[in-house]
Amino acid sequence: MFALLPEESFTWGDFGVDNELILPKLFREATESCGVCGGVAAGLPMAYLAGFALYALQHRGQESAGLVVGDGSGGKLWLKRGMGLVSEVFPVMAELRDRPGNLAVGHVRYSYGEKKAHPENAEPLLFRYRHGELAVVHNGRLLNGGALREELQAEGAIFQTDTDSELLAHLIARQGNPDLAGALQAVVPRLEGAFSFILTDGKKVYGLRDRHGFRPLSLAGLSGKGFFLASETCAFDTIGAEYIRDLAPGELVILTGEGMESRQLLKPGRPSLCVFEYIYFARPDSNLQGINVHLVRRELGRRLAREHPAPADLVTGVPDSSIAAASSYAEESGLPYEMALVKNRYIGRTFIRPTQQMREEGVDLKLNVVRKIVEGKRVVIVDDSVVRGTTSMKLVRMMRRAGAREVHMRISSPPVIATCHYGIDIPTAKELISHGRTPAAVAGLLGVDSIGFLSEKGMIDAIGLSPEQLCRACFSGVDQYAPA
Amino acid sequence: MFALLPEESFTWGDFGVDNELILPKLFREATESCGVCGGVAAGLPMAYLAGFALYALQHRGQESAGLVVGDGSGGKLWLKRGMGLVSEVFPVMAELRDRPGNLAVGHVRYSYGEKKAHPENAEPLLFRYRHGELAVVHNGRLLNGGALREELQAEGAIFQTDTDSELLAHLIARQGNPDLAGALQAVVPRLEGAFSFILTDGKKVYGLRDRHGFRPLSLAGLSGKGFFLASETCAFDTIGAEYIRDLAPGELVILTGEGMESRQLLKPGRPSLCVFEYIYFARPDSNLQGINVHLVRRELGRRLAREHPAPADLVTGVPDSSIAAASSYAEESGLPYEMALVKNRYIGRTFIRPTQQMREEGVDLKLNVVRKIVEGKRVVIVDDSVVRGTTSMKLVRMMRRAGAREVHMRISSPPVIATCHYGIDIPTAKELISHGRTPAAVAGLLGVDSIGFLSEKGMIDAIGLSPEQLCRACFSGVDQYAPA
Amino acid sequence: MFALLPEESFTWGDFGVDNELILPKLFREATESCGVCGGVAAGLPMAYLAGFALYALQHRGQESAGLVVGDGSGGKLWLKRGMGLVSEVFPVMAELRDRPGNLAVGHVRYSYGEKKAHPENAEPLLFRYRHGELAVVHNGRLLNGGALREELQAEGAIFQTDTDSELLAHLIARQGNPDLAGALQAVVPRLEGAFSFILTDGKKVYGLRDRHGFRPLSLAGLSGKGFFLASETCAFDTIGAEYIRDLAPGELVILTGEGMESRQLLKPGRPSLCVFEYIYFARPDSNLQGINVHLVRRELGRRLAREHPAPADLVTGVPDSSIAAASSYAEESGLPYEMALVKNRYIGRTFIRPTQQMREEGVDLKLNVVRKIVEGKRVVIVDDSVVRGTTSMKLVRMMRRAGAREVHMRISSPPVIATCHYGIDIPTAKELISHGRTPAAVAGLLGVDSIGFLSEKGMIDAIGLSPEQLCRACFSGVDQYAPA
Amino acid sequence: MFALLPEESFTWGDFGVDNELILPKLFREATESCGVCGGVAAGLPMAYLAGFALYALQHRGQESAGLVVGDGSGGKLWLKRGMGLVSEVFPVMAELRDRPGNLAVGHVRYSYGEKKAHPENAEPLLFRYRHGELAVVHNGRLLNGGALREELQAEGAIFQTDTDSELLAHLIARQGNPDLAGALQAVVPRLEGAFSFILTDGKKVYGLRDRHGFRPLSLAGLSGKGFFLASETCAFDTIGAEYIRDLAPGELVILTGEGMESRQLLKPGRPSLCVFEYIYFARPDSNLQGINVHLVRRELGRRLAREHPAPADLVTGVPDSSIAAASSYAEESGLPYEMALVKNRYIGRTFIRPTQQMREEGVDLKLNVVRKIVEGKRVVIVDDSVVRGTTSMKLVRMMRRAGAREVHMRISSPPVIATCHYGIDIPTAKELISHGRTPAAVAGLLGVDSIGFLSEKGMIDAIGLSPEQLCRACFSGVDQYAPA
Repeated sequence: MFALLPEESFTWGDFGVDNELILPKLFREATESCGVCGGVAAGLPMAYLAGFALYALQHRGQESAGLVVGDGSGGKLWLKRGMGLVSEVFPVMAELRDRPGNLAVGHVRYSYGEKKAHPENAEPLLFRYRHGELAVVHNGRLLNGGALREELQAEGAIFQTDTDSELLAHLIARQGNPDLAGALQAVVPRLEGAFSFILTDGKKVYGLRDRHGFRPLSLAGLSGKGFFLASETCAFDTIGAEYIRDLAPGELVILTGEGMESRQLLKPGRPSLCVFEYIYFARPDSNLQGINVHLVRRELGRRLAREHPAPADLVTGVPDSSIAAASSYAEESGLPYEMALVKNRYIGRTFIRPTQQMREEGVDLKLNVVRKIVEGKRVVIVDDSVVRGTTSMKLVRMMRRAGAREVHMRISSPPVIATCHYGIDIPTAKELISHGRTPAAVAGLLGVDSIGFLSEKGMIDAIGLSPEQLCRACFSGVDQYAPA
Repeated sequence: MFALLPEESFTWGDFGVDNELILPKLFREATESCGVCGGVAAGLPMAYLAGFALYALQHRGQESAGLVVGDGSGGKLWLKRGMGLVSEVFPVMAELRDRPGNLAVGHVRYSYGEKKAHPENAEPLLFRYRHGELAVVHNGRLLNGGALREELQAEGAIFQTDTDSELLAHLIARQGNPDLAGALQAVVPRLEGAFSFILTDGKKVYGLRDRHGFRPLSLAGLSGKGFFLASETCAFDTIGAEYIRDLAPGELVILTGEGMESRQLLKPGRPSLCVFEYIYFARPDSNLQGINVHLVRRELGRRLAREHPAPADLVTGVPDSSIAAASSYAEESGLPYEMALVKNRYIGRTFIRPTQQMREEGVDLKLNVVRKIVEGKRVVIVDDSVVRGTTSMKLVRMMRRAGAREVHMRISSPPVIATCHYGIDIPTAKELISHGRTPAAVAGLLGVDSIGFLSEKGMIDAIGLSPEQLCRACFSGVDQYAPA
Repeated sequence: MFALLPEESFTWGDFGVDNELILPKLFREATESCGVCGGVAAGLPMAYLAGFALYALQHRGQESAGLVVGDGSGGKLWLKRGMGLVSEVFPVMAELRDRPGNLAVGHVRYSYGEKKAHPENAEPLLFRYRHGELAVVHNGRLLNGGALREELQAEGAIFQTDTDSELLAHLIARQGNPDLAGALQAVVPRLEGAFSFILTDGKKVYGLRDRHGFRPLSLAGLSGKGFFLASETCAFDTIGAEYIRDLAPGELVILTGEGMESRQLLKPGRPSLCVFEYIYFARPDSNLQGINVHLVRRELGRRLAREHPAPADLVTGVPDSSIAAASSYAEESGLPYEMALVKNRYIGRTFIRPTQQMREEGVDLKLNVVRKIVEGKRVVIVDDSVVRGTTSMKLVRMMRRAGAREVHMRISSPPVIATCHYGIDIPTAKELISHGRTPAAVAGLLGVDSIGFLSEKGMIDAIGLSPEQLCRACFSGVDQYAPA
Repeated sequence: MFALLPEESFTWGDFGVDNELILPKLFREATESCGVCGGVAAGLPMAYLAGFALYALQHRGQESAGLVVGDGSGGKLWLKRGMGLVSEVFPVMAELRDRPGNLAVGHVRYSYGEKKAHPENAEPLLFRYRHGELAVVHNGRLLNGGALREELQAEGAIFQTDTDSELLAHLIARQGNPDLAGALQAVVPRLEGAFSFILTDGKKVYGLRDRHGFRPLSLAGLSGKGFFLASETCAFDTIGAEYIRDLAPGELVILTGEGMESRQLLKPGRPSLCVFEYIYFARPDSNLQGINVHLVRRELGRRLAREHPAPADLVTGVPDSSIAAASSYAEESGLPYEMALVKNRYIGRTFIRPTQQMREEGVDLKLNVVRKIVEGKRVVIVDDSVVRGTTSMKLVRMMRRAGAREVHMRISSPPVIATCHYGIDIPTAKELISHGRTPAAVAGLLGVDSIGFLSEKGMIDAIGLSPEQLCRACFSGVDQYAPA
């Protein structure tokens, strides 16, 4: 399970398994890196619209949020960014409503945990260079970021953040082309890896996607008054923008109030949208490549039911991301779907360390098992993925304590056996419970009566894209774009 | 639909219906009044446990939160209370963990909206009177509160809050009995209406339920070290307390570290637990009168499907409270259950006023309809209740805009035709869409293709209690306990 | 020295004196209890004016601040109060400017330290009673407060605060007279001790001073549009109000937009304004009984110079309260006045605990001695008072470390030998360094070359009132109004 | 008068003078740019000491504060910076006490007003470059900053702040020398103007002063365990550091726990310490070039009395910066010194806009004239400087309203007739009241009975340095280092 909200770390004592699995992070197992948006439109309150778009993208990052706003004339950009949720950085939305500006670019950043949370890394970044101002936001991770930084530093560059956005700004500034599109054309081919960038020079908004399209980026119209870009289409629904299409891998779009220009900046590589966007990251009401995420999850559940039926009395899902797959698993298998796990939506980011008493009772402060539902029953838990396995262990333990007679784990994706080089926070291989273990061995570790992972083919068929259009390196262990 | 989180008011323009229905509150239609908890146990960090219990009860009130903590010796009580969520009033749970005390009483208060939010009304209230200190929390509403206040004021009493807790404290203090149980025995019979009180004098914790048991109150054990009371059993699960039983109507329990004493303080009236606790208020993992709330909601959906089948392609529920009923409606009717409505969990309490553009697009900032799911489809929306009808209107409008071919509304409770005198914030009769209207007329107003309300019998049978054990005055219009 | 800002406690190691003197509070030695204000005027923004008056009175209390505002019609009063400075409770003064209301009453409360800081005790208190609403603020302390509370509690009263304001409200409510002036006439004679009350029923503002006039309270006009009361006249200057006169001891004034009514509520006792108001509490630009505080302090210094000349090279004062006396001491004695002690105005309420290194160096984080001024010099330190003596000890130590050849302490008031029963936070007798010690013995403890206290006659003559008009119980040890 | 605390802008209506003088800023007339500190010492809590040093330097800047801390090994630096006072950025000093680190560098930044307040400009700035990490703080202003930025941008540099610190970091990084001292030696000669820099690479701390020594920077020892640099010596007193000497113009010092190395980095130019440091900026307990600031101000007052005696009854100063000069003016002239102006220390940074009524009454919310002192009197107001003259006008007006018979203005510095190019926020020439006007003309504008400015010679003699050692360009209009 991939929790939407950041979770506090705590150890849950001895699970009776090998120690390498007993890691401090129990809940959050992997997460997305960021959400980006931006657009330009004459006569619309773009700061306000971008602010709402950030709300819609908040599930993609809760560490920091920020906006740059401009009047579209190339005049001075206004910047506000800070640590925390959109509602914490922009507590008074009316201020955004009243802030004039035809152009805005926004960002929400995923939290890698307190230790690595640096206010300096909050985006947008705003630079002054020889051709004026430049604001940049991004989602993804460059494979050759380290090498490029070293090269730039060797030439005398200084860095104030750890972001790929600052790296791109350096490249643009050194390129020297007063035309930003031209500068991008010159430097973007040097970038390897996953990235969706949005930039603005205060006059236009530029959107850019890597040659494989690892990270999503979609384009919408604003009632004929302009255009808007966002990581996910749910942002468009929130502000009443009309979805046009996803950016093509390697495409650069240049937005103005008057129109939109497209350039194929990079020779497109094999499209490789991250399959985890469908499985866990994206909001169910978003469409990726025109395919609705919720409907994919439903189909994943149906195929899982066919591939791995379970001799059980009921099916339950882990809120919120596994509910869709769990309910269709139940439908397909003819079992009742019950909400046996209830999530406390108010715990939020509070730091919680249970007392000894609570630990002994196996109580959980965020999730509660409904004893009346599971007592004496054979339960199927459908989860979207298993990464470290620590969350699964805990769930199983909770189910057993609540009286479940049998616990069958069904996972609507294949075993995760490799880490990700493209910006997803998946731990190293040896921390992955499925790395080097058969499902049976994993079942043993988790203490379940049976386990079933959806096959890679099942997953791909459920989505409906061809296998080549999806990056599945963390499932296959084969990363054809990875650095040698 | 009853939203769990407070919603900002905004008008959605002209719905083409009579004006009396176009009210500023679109989302929150009715709400619960409060959550209470408290207990005493030797050697347990009671402030910490009560703090977690408040988290578990947070859905019952988000306006204010507070705790009193004592050492059980009758020594000075520590009080902290404030406006906002538990996480706002107690931002550092470690402070509660480290606060010594064998005894604690807590409260979360429902928000009646900014206008009526008074910091003074936050509970617990802490009084000094002739026999020492007295802390009081409550859930409910006295029918004769106004009369008692007038009587007390005529005798020279002064009031600093609008709460029934202060009223009870005045009665206790005037009664003059140094024994708190004795004082309660003397004055509680004067109270008419709905109430669940928890009190402490710093030595013991007292729990008290009105003669009809309108508002829930349950008792649990703490591993043999003490006892704990809470509005809902989900609080027990959170802290590892062992459920014992619900308090009987009219019962007073007196808790100490050593044991528990029970007195039938009031001649029990006909039990009348508020049926809305099952339908909407309570958390699905709570049990009321030993009956699990989630399972009731599932049964409500099944019976609704049988009473009011719909010629449709799919079923959807309104998150979060209607999901259970919607999924069982789907199962029972053989239709697929889809999550066509997606809720943005981050909007929270941000004040939001959509722009003209957004209004025209019919976009909603908190709920989003998944177009890919409903487009060209005949959709059943299952909701738990319809009060004013404004939320329903908005949902229907959103569905139509997203391309739904037909919209069939199914409600897992009967039409609400009367207001509540027992503390539930239901508007006056003329604001109720079903007041004086047939379902067909309501369907016309809402603009749906059909509507179906679960029958009162269906509702009662789904719960499994006898009709006499439930207060259904808002559905029947017959309130046998109401003041003449 | 009496510091204006609350100070953090720290021990400064071994001063080589008897242990009873080594107390945690080094800086704040005694302090005033509160500041009150209130008024009514047609067409003026009274919330705003009262807010500024609170700023002017802030030196009288920094623990909490609050305001009630009404429209003068007896309609519902608006209340806001909270812990902290005026600028913390009312961070946006524009909100007060825009709050309509012809009537306002405000309060700042002195901080008795974190331990005793209770949000519940913040004033104004707002009560509802049989005749409507009633708001109360006060400055002072009742001698028979405990007895009255007991009596009221015995009759069934409940208390939610420790304030005398709540006590007065109880008495008023029990009295039963719908006319507030009449009720005050009936109950105020029962109050013994020091008090300046301001009350409002939402229609009029009532100001009231005890029969001895222990605590100040002055009256001003508002350009013919109304009247205003405040603890000190500096509040009038801030808002442009025209000083009329001080209230007489035992006088009640009743203010409306139309006019002002005065009643001699209490048979006036011997007037006894607290002499510490002149010595330390009041702001130098305030006038008490028509006598300017700064000019009194200057005269205290001059008389001190005549009574206790010192063979020295320069004179310095302890900022801020002793500067006036120190400079006139210098003038009178023909010695240069130097600012050898510099105060850091930014330390504020920060908690500071010096390191071992800093302790060894004798450094102070709030005060700094200017070595270049005192090195090799014979220094006279003029301070306004010595209570515990711990501050003086520290100052002497700092002077010595900075190279002062001789240190002569001169105090512009007599030795404090008794505690105060009227609301001033003077410690118990055995904590007072002058209690039971001759000045020579005190000099020995403090480690100064000489010490000189202004005589009681010198102090009285400097003020210019007759000795009977001033309360000097803490200097004389004779408290003729104290409870037997 | 130069106010220590930032003031809110407001217009005070028509002063009957030419409009160019009626500027929005009435109080703050000129201000210093920043305070810097930093040091390294084995075994001392350097974060804590640097935090206290920032408190001592707070008067030099209230817009932002920040610290970098390192362990002296070159390991990763910890950075915290933010908008506001030291007490706002580091609300819990205990966190600094507990933060390990032998090395720290800190900064407080002067507020140029809300409009220009950019969180991005808060220092220290922390850079990563080819040779590791680099933190920089500075005080001053480069004359050729614009040209250097353009040059660097032309080479592809990007800027994220407006600071000279970022500029220096770029130059260092481009220089390429792995030895930071060597890099400084190479690039610092390119810097023109006023600067005191402190830098750290995490191993050593580097302090650097421009060739004329415009801005102060002093060195102290830490009990043999290390060294500490600060803008003013008052910071040393606060932390118990032992003053060693001021840095020489053009000197670079390199501090380690073991020792201190000095290099004459720049050929020293004519020393030119900003004379305003003595007149207004520095804290009275600081010594500059070994000369105590308070004693200079006293001497300024004495010489002013001799140059410009006044036929008056009393002398008063403008708190806080003019008190020293005013009191010695009084002593020298044999007139009594009175504190006729009282400052409200609690107004702070609250935004205040007086009402029409208050404006008509001429009331001031921050300063109050004590009528009892000045009524019917001939008053000498001693102020440290007159820049725009708006504050003086207001003071005169207040004095007149309070009944002063005559008002004589005496200024303890010469007329300011030119702006400053070295970082002091003095307005342009045409905004300066003395620019192109004789003192008599200025007196006419201000509405005083007489005015007297201290002569330049008197000022220089009072300080005791040779005229060549002081920058007096704003008084003389001759700036020998200014760009052609």
